[in-house]
This record gives sequence, structure tokens and C-alpha cells, in this order.
Amino acid sequence: MNFGIVRFVLGWILQFEGIFLILPAITAAVYKEWREVIAFIATALASLLIGYLMRFKRPKDMSLYTREGFASVALGWFVMSLVGAVPFVATGDIPNYIDALFETISGLTTTGASILTDVEVVSHGGLFWRSFTHWIGGMGVFVFIMAIVPLAGGSTMNLMRAESPGPSVGKLVPRVKDTAKALYVIYLGITGIEVVTLLICGMNLFESLTLTFGTVGTGGFGVSNASIGGYSHTVQVVITVFMILSGINYTFFFAMIHRQFKQAFAIEEVRWYLAIIFGSVLIIFINIKNMYTLASDALRDAFFQVGSIITTTGFSTTDFDTWPQLSKTIIVLLMIIGACAGSTGGGFKISRILILLKAIKKELLMMIHPNMIKKLRLDGRVIPHETIRSTNVFMSIYIVILFGSTLLVSFDEFGFTTNFTAVLACLNNIGPGLDLVGPARNFAFFSPFVKIILMFDMLAGRLELLPMLILLVPQCWKKY
Amino acid sequence: MNFGIVRFVLGWILQFEGIFLILPAITAAVYKEWREVIAFIATALASLLIGYLMRFKRPKDMSLYTREGFASVALGWFVMSLVGAVPFVATGDIPNYIDALFETISGLTTTGASILTDVEVVSHGGLFWRSFTHWIGGMGVFVFIMAIVPLAGGSTMNLMRAESPGPSVGKLVPRVKDTAKALYVIYLGITGIEVVTLLICGMNLFESLTLTFGTVGTGGFGVSNASIGGYSHTVQVVITVFMILSGINYTFFFAMIHRQFKQAFAIEEVRWYLAIIFGSVLIIFINIKNMYTLASDALRDAFFQVGSIITTTGFSTTDFDTWPQLSKTIIVLLMIIGACAGSTGGGFKISRILILLKAIKKELLMMIHPNMIKKLRLDGRVIPHETIRSTNVFMSIYIVILFGSTLLVSFDEFGFTTNFTAVLACLNNIGPGLDLVGPARNFAFFSPFVKIILMFDMLAGRLELLPMLILLVPQCWKKY
Repeated sequence: MNFGIVRFVLGWILQFEGIFLILPAITAAVYKEWREVIAFIATALASLLIGYLMRFKRPKDMSLYTREGFASVALGWFVMSLVGAVPFVATGDIPNYIDALFETISGLTTTGASILTDVEVVSHGGLFWRSFTHWIGGMGVFVFIMAIVPLAGGSTMNLMRAESPGPSVGKLVPRVKDTAKALYVIYLGITGIEVVTLLICGMNLFESLTLTFGTVGTGGFGVSNASIGGYSHTVQVVITVFMILSGINYTFFFAMIHRQFKQAFAIEEVRWYLAIIFGSVLIIFINIKNMYTLASDALRDAFFQVGSIITTTGFSTTDFDTWPQLSKTIIVLLMIIGACAGSTGGGFKISRILILLKAIKKELLMMIHPNMIKKLRLDGRVIPHETIRSTNVFMSIYIVILFGSTLLVSFDEFGFTTNFTAVLACLNNIGPGLDLVGPARNFAFFSPFVKIILMFDMLAGRLELLPMLILLVPQCWKKY
Repeated sequence: MNFGIVRFVLGWILQFEGIFLILPAITAAVYKEWREVIAFIATALASLLIGYLMRFKRPKDMSLYTREGFASVALGWFVMSLVGAVPFVATGDIPNYIDALFETISGLTTTGASILTDVEVVSHGGLFWRSFTHWIGGMGVFVFIMAIVPLAGGSTMNLMRAESPGPSVGKLVPRVKDTAKALYVIYLGITGIEVVTLLICGMNLFESLTLTFGTVGTGGFGVSNASIGGYSHTVQVVITVFMILSGINYTFFFAMIHRQFKQAFAIEEVRWYLAIIFGSVLIIFINIKNMYTLASDALRDAFFQVGSIITTTGFSTTDFDTWPQLSKTIIVLLMIIGACAGSTGGGFKISRILILLKAIKKELLMMIHPNMIKKLRLDGRVIPHETIRSTNVFMSIYIVILFGSTLLVSFDEFGFTTNFTAVLACLNNIGPGLDLVGPARNFAFFSPFVKIILMFDMLAGRLELLPMLILLVPQCWKKY
């Protein structure tokens, strides 16, 4: 591995994190939380300084090959989390560093699983930083860096490949840098529209911002103990809409902006995404409507929860762990399915599932017509063999991590549903699971060992498994 | 589809079933259960007659292509189950036909999941037939037919491919017919040795035969309510050994018989199989030993249960649902892993897991050395691209059926652990699961709808998914 370039990239990361940390400091200052101001400013300065020192000596070889790209991204996210956790400990909001690290990784990976039993006692600065990590992690910090920093050559594609969600990186425009910029423009646009909409609904600026970060980043950290349950019905509907929008492939928005409406709605993944949402809402609505006096309440809760889980946001307006088993099982399936590739959402991703289902269909047809020649197509284009192979490998790794983690988490001796859905909730970057980790609960009760397993799962899920795994291969660390 | 050949093959199946049904009739006669004798003889005669009529007109085209092979096998198993369930209803042992069908499919697929709340009130004829279905289904009735019937040409390979467990059919000897014969000789050999061993242990002939059928077919139906728990420690150890032997790839025994000891123990799948067994026993032993006064009891139970679950037999000597969560999670993982390919056991199969893990390893190494050229190898031989593809498709289908069935089973509104492990137990042909379908319970409480789903899962699991799925494709039924 070319350690020089990794160090250099990590330096950039730390400098950017230093700048990001100024925002919660400002928030804290607005609310006159002086201890918090000091904590955030001190961490910001330290981060800037260390980042500067790491970038001081330019590496001889500036090329980023696959391994350096993937390792930089995995290490970058880890370093960001290590530094991001410091203010929580310094302010006393989360005195235990392992817990603070869990909360930060949960934030950056847009998981939204919390170890806090009471979020309402946390400072405004702390809550802002907690939600802002969702926004940073949603689109990805490397995409951000690529959008504004002139990094060397075309090899930056390896950074984007490692950080972007989905089976293949779709370049919206020919140049990586311009693609990254286009993504950020759309991201900022959606963010802005939601903040303004929430302000119009009568929400204050602090809540509008934090909840928007949680929505568009598909994170799920709230600022009240009832998550979104305490807000007006209008606000709940607004957040439902923006959650569902945030789970859509950004290619869709790109096409819409360029007035290619027909192309936008022809994207198979988007059609299936919407079909799955409406189908699930319908079944859950029928299944739960007897629990409600008003059918409209049942429908709104069904929509909110389906939108929240499939996009892997994890907000809640009701405790779906009290729903009938059929609805809960649908929730578990939605956890696995996840959002569209190329969105800020996590999970297995709908396009991957489409590719696997198409492969199954082809196999069956080939048994009936052995001489048939048929290529798998998505959106009319032939799916490259490479993509099919990597989708299969992704599935294998996913299953290995899912069941392997469930085994390790079972060391804490809680029930199977708790363990399995806790791992699902972390690996798919959702937040709540069922039973002891249901929407009305939190992750505080797990042992530090299990928390570390779950932190690994969150990072592995956000970075699409491979970057985290490559760090575990000894050959990766060989110098050359 | 060439319906003529399918009809012809189903005719053979029914005739053979007619002959098989004479054995329980003899058993019933020995125990002077005259009503049972009449029921079995009547069913046998009807089966023979219908089979004769179906075989009366020889089809014009005797060739068996993939689709006819797979459809014949799937339909053959279904028809066998339909007929095999009749005596249970006729004797009054299982008055409800859906329940009788569940029990018969569970028997033939070597699952061993039962809807009986009290097996000790069932007639000897009924118990014998129930266990004998394990023996028929263990090696496969088509393999049996191929071993002794002169079917047309080399295309019979398609029958064997559809019925034999594992990612690829290993022909032990060049001709399919001889391979089928060799398999049956080994199968009969192991059966004979276990029966004699159990007789030496002081067990009577009826119990020796029925328990041996359940062991070598990796089925799991017992003849006492305590499964194997009521027998002596010696008997438990004997059954443990024979269960573990029955989960081994038959290539191993073939090599052993031909004194190729080195080759036999070089089989990667067998080494991993034994390693997983010993590893699991060790962890479970440490985890449960405080529940026992004698460490030897804990070790024996651990060995028995691990052997029973990984081979997908499903016998039990203790209620492992009362074990700590870590041990239960290991049991769930063993359920999925399953036995060796080319054994009578079910599950995902160890060789498939090895292929997938090797593919993951290759992917990671290719990220580090992008120009590396490396072929996947198993037992030193390059794994054909075809096998890797079909393993990936198998995994996709497995996951779809696993989670799809869990969703459908949740209509009955039992808990997630119950639903998920009930599907696992049926799809992997094991028998018991956890919670409400734990080893001390049974499957009687499910609705007929859920029982039908689980019957599909049992057949899909035994026939390795594809043959059952191909029946669901409309094109399969087109005449040509």
C-alpha cells in the first residue's frame, strides 16, 4: 500500500472535519452553551492542526489505486468518527467514549441507532452535531472533497467507488468532479426545500435543520424522545415525503432537472421502489387499521413507517414493535431491501435485488430453453458481467456478516429477534429494530464488545462491505 | 414440455411406491393391526394399478431434457406424497388429509417436522411407514429407479441432477446407472451396520429399523415422544456417530471402500464439515456445561444436537430451546449451513459455502492485486464457471424463498423466532426449530395455509429449489 497518499487523504478529511465542527460551536453559542462552545472549538482546532501536519509533506506518488482508495475511505470514516466522538465526551453529553463513538459512527453512517436513553437532556450543540453527522455521512465526505478539491487525476474514481452506494457507480456527467458537484447541488437543494417547508409548518430553525439533516441523510436521529411522534400531522406528512424522496436514485432528480421526465420515470429501480412502498403500506394499513379509531391515522403511520424503514432513515411516529406480526415481518423485509442505489439510503439496495431476481428468471428460462441466449438488462441496458459478479459477491459477504454478527451479538444473551434485528438495523444503517431494540428503545444496554461489533456493521453497511473487509486482509498492509 | 415422458416416469414412481407400501403392511401384520394391513394393502394396490395404467402407453419420444427431468422429479415427489398420505387417513392415525400430507412430505423430504402431538398412540404400521419414507427420500427414489430400471439413454442424468443434493453431480463412476448403484450399495451398507449395532445395544427390531431409517436418511422422525431422549447413553452415542456419518459426502465412502484413504480425507468439504462440528460442540459445551451436573452429559448432548442439526436430521435428546442464546444461535447457523453435498443431508451445503467464501477471498485479493489471475479451486480442481454461477443463483433463490416464506408464515401471527426458524427447519429439511417449533413442540398449531407454505419449502429444500420453481413458470407447461 502507498501509505503516503493514505496519510495525505486522511489529512484532508481531518481538516474538513475541523471546519464542520465550527457549525455546532456556533449553534452552542446561539444557545449560550459556553462549555459546549469550548469543546467544539477545541476539537475543531486540534482536527485542523493534525490534518495540516498530515498534509504537510506531499507524497511522492499521488496515484490512488483501488486498494489505496478503499483503504483511505474506510480509514477516513474511522478517523472522522474517532475525532467526532470527542466533543460528546468533553461536554459530558455522553461521558463514556465507547458510547460516544457508537453514537458518532451511528450518525456518520446515517444509521440513527442511539445509546441515549434521554435525548432531551443533551445540549443544543451536541444535538446539532449529532444530526449534522447524518448530513455529512449521507452524501459522503469524499464525494464532498472531490467536488471542491483538485485531487490528482482520474484515479479519484476509486474514492467515489468505495463511498457511493450501489452495485455500480453511475457517472451523471463524464467527469467525476462534475458528478460529485451535481450530486451535492441536488443534495443541498433537497435540504434547502425541506428546511423551508418545515419552517413554514411553524417549526423553529434548530428543529427544522436537525430533522432535515436526519431526513435527507436518511439518518434518523431526532431531537425529542418521541422521535417524530410529538409533531403535528402536517410535519409528519412532510417528513414522510422527504424521506421517500431521499431514498430515490439521484439519477432520477438529475433527469428531472434536465426535463427528461420520461427517462426519469422509466428507471426500473425507481418504479420498483415506489411499487414496494405502496404495496407494503396497503398490506400494513389493512393489518393495523383495527388498532386505530381513525383510518387516516393508521394510513399516515403506515406510510411514515414504511418510508422510514425502506429508506433506512429510522424515524418513528409510533412503536411498530406493537404491530401485528405480519406488519412487523414486512418491516424486517423492508430493512433488508433498503433504498435505491445512488441515494443516501442504505440496505441491500433495490437494483441489486432486481439484478439477482433477473438472474433467477434467466436460470429458470434456460432450463426450459437450454439453447436460449439472453443477457440480463436493467433500464434496457445490458448489465455487465462484472456488475453481476460483484452483486453476487456482495450478497455472499452480506450474508456472512449478517449471520456472523448475529452470532457474536448473541454473546450478550438477549433473544434471537433482538440480536438479529439489531444487526439488521446497524448493517443496513436503519436505527431501530424489533423487541429490545424496537423504536421505543435504544442500544445502551449492549456490552462494549457487542457495541464494537455493531459499529463495524454500521461502517461496513455504509461503505458497502468491501472497504471495511479489505482492512482485515494482511496483504493490504504490505508496503511497496 | 413432453407430457408423455413425464406421465411415463410418474407411472414408474407409483408402481415403486406400491411395492414400498407392502413393507408397512407386513409390519402391521406382525403387530396384528388388521385395519392398518388393509389400509396399506389397498393403497399399494391402487398405486400399482394407476402406475401400470400410466405406463401402459409408451411415449413416442423417450428423451428426457432438463425441463422434463426437473418437472418429473418435482411432480414425482408430489405424487408420491399425495399417495403416501392416504394410509395415515385410512387408518385414522392422522384423520386430517392436509396434516397427513404434511407428515408424508416431511417424511419423504427427510425433514422430520411433525404435526403429531403424541407419536406413541400411532400404530406400528403407521410409524414404520412414517420412518420408511425417510429412508426412501434420503437417497432419492429416482436414484433408486435409475439403479435398477433401464431408462432411455444418457438423458437420465437430468433426473439425477434434479434429485441429488449439491452444487454439481459428481459421478462416482463413468455411467449414471453404475453411480446410482454404487450410492445405493453404500446406503444399504450403512443402514445394515446401524441396524445390527442397535440390535446389539439391546434394541428391538422395530425400533432399530425405524430409528435407522431416520438416521441414515437424516430424517428425524422418532417412535417415542421424547425422540432419542429416552434411550440409553450408548444408543445416543451410536446414533450420533451414524448421523454424522450420514452427513458426509458419499464420495468419501466410495474412496474409503476403494482404499483411497488419503484422497478421502483430502476432500475439503469433509474436513470443513468435521471442523465445524468439533468447533460448534466445543463452544456449546463450554456454554451449557453449568446446566449439567456431569460434564460428560453436557458433552454428549452437545455432540448429539450438533450432529443432529448440521446433518439436518432433527432428532433430539434434550430441549435445546432452553439452552443459552449463544448456543441457540449456533444451532440456527448450523441449520442454514447443513451437511455435505452428495450426502442424504439437507441445508445450504458446506461445499456451496466454501465456493462462496472462496469467491469473496478472490474478490478481496483482486482489489489488492488488480492484475492477479486466479481461478477458484475445490479439492485442487478448478471450479467451473457454471458451478459458481449456479451456486450464486441457488443462494439468491434460497434467500428469496427463506424471507418470502417467513412473510407468508407470519400471517398466523406467531413470533418472529417461531416463524423464521419454522421456515429454516422446513426449507433445510431439519425438523425442529426454536420457540413454538422447538424440539419439545410440533407443527400442529399452524393454519392449513401456513402448512401448505411449509410443505412447499420442504419439497423445495429437498429438491434443491430449482425443480419446484420450474413448475411455477408458465412456459414450462407449454406443449411442443
